[in-house]
Amino acid sequence: MTSNDTPAVVVVGSIGIDTVETSREKREEILGGSASFACVASSFFSTVGMVGVVGTDFPEEYRNLYLRHEVDLEGLQTEAGKTFRWSGVYEENMDNRRTLSTDLNVFEQFSPRLPEGYKACRYLFLANISPSLQLHVLDEVSDPKFVLADTMDLWIDIAQDDLRKVIARVDMLTLNESEARHLTGKYSLIKAARELLALGPKYVLIKKGEHGSMLFSEEKLFLMPAYVLEEFEDPTGAGDTFAGAFIGALAAAEDTSESAIRRAMLRGSVVASFGVERFSLDGLDKLSMTDIERRVEKLHAMIRCD
Amino acid sequence: MTSNDTPAVVVVGSIGIDTVETSREKREEILGGSASFACVASSFFSTVGMVGVVGTDFPEEYRNLYLRHEVDLEGLQTEAGKTFRWSGVYEENMDNRRTLSTDLNVFEQFSPRLPEGYKACRYLFLANISPSLQLHVLDEVSDPKFVLADTMDLWIDIAQDDLRKVIARVDMLTLNESEARHLTGKYSLIKAARELLALGPKYVLIKKGEHGSMLFSEEKLFLMPAYVLEEFEDPTGAGDTFAGAFIGALAAAEDTSESAIRRAMLRGSVVASFGVERFSLDGLDKLSMTDIERRVEKLHAMIRCD
Repeated sequence: MTSNDTPAVVVVGSIGIDTVETSREKREEILGGSASFACVASSFFSTVGMVGVVGTDFPEEYRNLYLRHEVDLEGLQTEAGKTFRWSGVYEENMDNRRTLSTDLNVFEQFSPRLPEGYKACRYLFLANISPSLQLHVLDEVSDPKFVLADTMDLWIDIAQDDLRKVIARVDMLTLNESEARHLTGKYSLIKAARELLALGPKYVLIKKGEHGSMLFSEEKLFLMPAYVLEEFEDPTGAGDTFAGAFIGALAAAEDTSESAIRRAMLRGSVVASFGVERFSLDGLDKLSMTDIERRVEKLHAMIRCD
Repeated sequence: MTSNDTPAVVVVGSIGIDTVETSREKREEILGGSASFACVASSFFSTVGMVGVVGTDFPEEYRNLYLRHEVDLEGLQTEAGKTFRWSGVYEENMDNRRTLSTDLNVFEQFSPRLPEGYKACRYLFLANISPSLQLHVLDEVSDPKFVLADTMDLWIDIAQDDLRKVIARVDMLTLNESEARHLTGKYSLIKAARELLALGPKYVLIKKGEHGSMLFSEEKLFLMPAYVLEEFEDPTGAGDTFAGAFIGALAAAEDTSESAIRRAMLRGSVVASFGVERFSLDGLDKLSMTDIERRVEKLHAMIRCD
């Protein structure tokens, strides 16, 4: 394979068609899924390939959105049947969401197949899919420099053994605060992170929604606030957008030192803030690097204390 | 008056005897009250005078605690009757507390009397007392350089006109996020802060408990995370401890520029973190400047992103 066929970043995750209801608005059949958010977010910083599955009903306009952002779709399978559907509703404060329905459709039989060129990728984001599939992908990649994995409550409940194997094999685990507590049985996030670090990853990134995120390593703790928005429309995909922009920025820096990781988190936080300002991927679609870097400067100024 | 009689910082607030119950422990008749926390926190950085009232039952050991920290007690009135009592219980996660009882006792008739020397103070913290009393104190001080005022839901409900007059006359208003929303009717904290800034203060400091605080000014926003603790015992007084350490550090710096304010917030956050590690003022009582500065360095390292 030539390096032209190998995107810097590979993302394996879900592609969904969502119906999202907030206190102000309801949007039906909009593009969602962890891989959608993460790939487009990553595309601002690096080349990115998507591994996922859609049904034959997947709208051309959504495929075009990926292509507009130069997301490589060689790893995107199209299977007979319908695309994964999810619908949910957010409370007034957007902190809590309630899932109304989940129809896995073609995603139920999803088995990630990495195109040959993807196997040499250096940066890999295993978004929220079953740990057994995450392990399968880890077996396929030859020499990744940095692997980030996400998970969710469901896998903690039904596939915790495999999940622990995944955690042992990645550089960074990302999960939200309730998941960290659920997985470890520790209320204190310091204790929870310590227990997760003991499983093997170098970093544990705990997401706290509008309160930002916490990066734990053996020796250090870094606190990254979320960019404060006056208004936002739809928090769906914020964590995946953060993760995608993060790993894209890390790949662009070609540096996985802790300070590079902090700078990449700043970008993750900023791109996620643009994402939640609009429904679906609308906040990312028109975004430019100038917009991103301008807001990175603003966020940096909001946390500087010298 | 000689300057010896004028503490750098004056704090006007409540002194209480609390009964605090958490999921792990119950402590009865422990020292509390906004002025107690704020004065001791401030004492690490500057001279401080306390204006408040206690009953004749106020334990000598608590008075000795103030004196150990060189809190000037010329403004502490002792009235016939019992000291203010408060009791409350915290949920498992310590985010929410429920008040079980409040007995104002001598605090009900409290009328702050500033000793002559206090009137020339340069830094004033009007902790949570009725806005009419806060206005009275503002009339008494001659030329303060920086006035910080706190408030609570009760005054928003029953004395909002006076509260708005207070806000118009201070340099910084501090309140928690639910109070900011309650007072302005705006859910967005940016909108809420903008509305509060329009009333006159140069700064609005919104407290978010374990999620830190946000400093709003006309042009800027600063995000100060809370120092992350592995365990904590009792969040009572955290906001007052923050405010006291903040204004003490500001007074010590003799600088009210925004960068000095940010540095003082770092100290407020750190001293508050020591405070919540123990019940009552136990976490502050044995604290040294070395402990504080060491943790300031740690917190600074947790937010640095260059």
